[in-house]
Amino acid sequence: MKNSIKTIILGKKIPLFLDSGKQLKNFKIAYQTYGKLNKNKNNVILICHALSGDQFTAGINPFTKKPGWWSKAIGPNLPIDTNRFFVICSNILGGCSGSTGPKELNPATKKFFNMSFPVITIRDMVKAQKMLIDELGIKQLLSVIGGSAGGFQALQWAATYPENVISAIPIATSFRHSAQNIAFHEVGRQAIMSDPDWCNGNYIDKKKTPKKGLSVARMLAHITYLSEEAFQRKFGRNLQNKLSVAYGFKTDFQVESYLKHQGQTFVNRFDANSYLYITRAMDYFDLPNQKKGGLKNIYKNTPVKFCVISFTSDWVYPTKYSKEIVDSLNAVGANVSFVEIQTDKGHDAFLLDEKEFNETVRGFLNSTANIMGVN
Amino acid sequence: MKNSIKTIILGKKIPLFLDSGKQLKNFKIAYQTYGKLNKNKNNVILICHALSGDQFTAGINPFTKKPGWWSKAIGPNLPIDTNRFFVICSNILGGCSGSTGPKELNPATKKFFNMSFPVITIRDMVKAQKMLIDELGIKQLLSVIGGSAGGFQALQWAATYPENVISAIPIATSFRHSAQNIAFHEVGRQAIMSDPDWCNGNYIDKKKTPKKGLSVARMLAHITYLSEEAFQRKFGRNLQNKLSVAYGFKTDFQVESYLKHQGQTFVNRFDANSYLYITRAMDYFDLPNQKKGGLKNIYKNTPVKFCVISFTSDWVYPTKYSKEIVDSLNAVGANVSFVEIQTDKGHDAFLLDEKEFNETVRGFLNSTANIMGVN
Repeated sequence: MKNSIKTIILGKKIPLFLDSGKQLKNFKIAYQTYGKLNKNKNNVILICHALSGDQFTAGINPFTKKPGWWSKAIGPNLPIDTNRFFVICSNILGGCSGSTGPKELNPATKKFFNMSFPVITIRDMVKAQKMLIDELGIKQLLSVIGGSAGGFQALQWAATYPENVISAIPIATSFRHSAQNIAFHEVGRQAIMSDPDWCNGNYIDKKKTPKKGLSVARMLAHITYLSEEAFQRKFGRNLQNKLSVAYGFKTDFQVESYLKHQGQTFVNRFDANSYLYITRAMDYFDLPNQKKGGLKNIYKNTPVKFCVISFTSDWVYPTKYSKEIVDSLNAVGANVSFVEIQTDKGHDAFLLDEKEFNETVRGFLNSTANIMGVN
Repeated sequence: MKNSIKTIILGKKIPLFLDSGKQLKNFKIAYQTYGKLNKNKNNVILICHALSGDQFTAGINPFTKKPGWWSKAIGPNLPIDTNRFFVICSNILGGCSGSTGPKELNPATKKFFNMSFPVITIRDMVKAQKMLIDELGIKQLLSVIGGSAGGFQALQWAATYPENVISAIPIATSFRHSAQNIAFHEVGRQAIMSDPDWCNGNYIDKKKTPKKGLSVARMLAHITYLSEEAFQRKFGRNLQNKLSVAYGFKTDFQVESYLKHQGQTFVNRFDANSYLYITRAMDYFDLPNQKKGGLKNIYKNTPVKFCVISFTSDWVYPTKYSKEIVDSLNAVGANVSFVEIQTDKGHDAFLLDEKEFNETVRGFLNSTANIMGVN
């Protein structure tokens, strides 16, 4: 699959009203589609990407030249089968892969937004996605699917636009950020903002990049994406190209090399300010707080069919949070299935080729499509 | 209790031979004592401190003016009862509370060591402690006690000097650093070394301090010291002096304020290079690797009596690692008791006033003292 770069301007007539009280006019959303929209326009699946993701879920990412981040799940005959479904994924608002975010020009001032970009929320991102879907002439989504922060968006879609969503698959996710979730993000942000090359956020104008700070933030985040067991299995105390420790502060252990590599490659593809804005949006995510009565009231009488998936070794959003979602949905008689997948791969398991996960997604999507008469 | 500053010069005749192959001559060890040495010199307890600790376990720390880090456990009638025991604690080699470390003057060059300080190991720290004990004319330790990296030292004492140790209490600890342990430390080190004020380690000469980097490292470490549950119980999503989020990047949540405070107070009392050296020593710790046959051979025929203590919610050194130690000790018929304490307080539980923990330590020490005829 070849990925061309598709961008659309939204908010031309009616702006996007943000949770902060601010507005965004004439903002860009970059998106990608896979498969074909059928005649009844009832085969649409919206994929919501996570913190460091982008719209290039499948095929080759034209920027990194690497396969899309979910190319194991999306494609012909894959669990999210592009022979049957029309898949849309857009770069989230505040992102750095073509959608309007801090590194883009403010059309009103012709200057880079930088830190003048308004602080956004998960709900704002979803509102922008809804504007995109409307613009594309699509009335209903067969499914909204996302892992991690993508799962926040899937839950938010079902909460805000239940009439436009047939089903939702929130994966490896939660309904709000915990104190520990916020804590890890705050350390990452402090690492970025402590880097003098961050220049109070104006590094693009100063022709600098806060590479070191962003790299530290990414290294830290990566520790949380794997389970302790997976780290031990993959790296243990293996040394990196040496027979014994060097009694110094350069790379001795493979795990150090791995993390540094993760940090270094990340700074080449991701914008530091976007990292600040998106982590902040995640920290602000608190779905029960959006309505008196919490999750139960939010999903009361919901027509949406849910498939909630968690992973046993995910310690970023442990299963207990998925169970709280499922309990609330069951308490209001919603249509919900729940699968906890046994794996030692941690939070990132949803990005990997987990057989049980693939089968769950494939089965749920096809049965939902069959019920809806998708052909 | 008043803490005067006691320092001793060691390695005057015979240097300390380090694991790296280097040597240290005329190095300082700063130490503190509590209680009185009895006539038979058989009431000595050595306390080994953790990464960020110091020799001021009890009384008022003369530098911070705050109570010593273990003043809840050490004192008259406390679990480690200074009415009965003579308690010694020394600042570890490489530390920054008076013992020789990177921030001290190299007596050979009269310049600050900075990064020319040799990379040390846990075993080197223990060797220095043995030299101190010898200098003080003490032949035998009734107990060596330590939590976290202090537990590494307790295990190392029992491994290296079994004839000088009656008992050991390794607490909230492990026998080696896991890949995840190393990973967290490496991120902290990268945060410090990325700070331009680190000046390649020569910040003292340049009259600078890598405050931001050290603060980020400490914030990160603090997340690991508490359990997810403890974070949630203490902070949840509580806001810091505001009624709603501010849609910005300053402190919104209490947990952010707490971590920043931890970072800021730490930079005022701790040396960044010491942080590098001690974390490295911890990463290098791999007790089974010190002898063919691993832990079992290390403790074969050991005369040392062990009391291994872990905490259910400690995810830095989870109970499974304590169990491996206990299994190895049992496999060689060693005298070992094991207590896993139920708490949601995480790794730092050993520093807190946990009733079951206090009773375990008190009971084990007194029964050991009774057997040894300590009066």
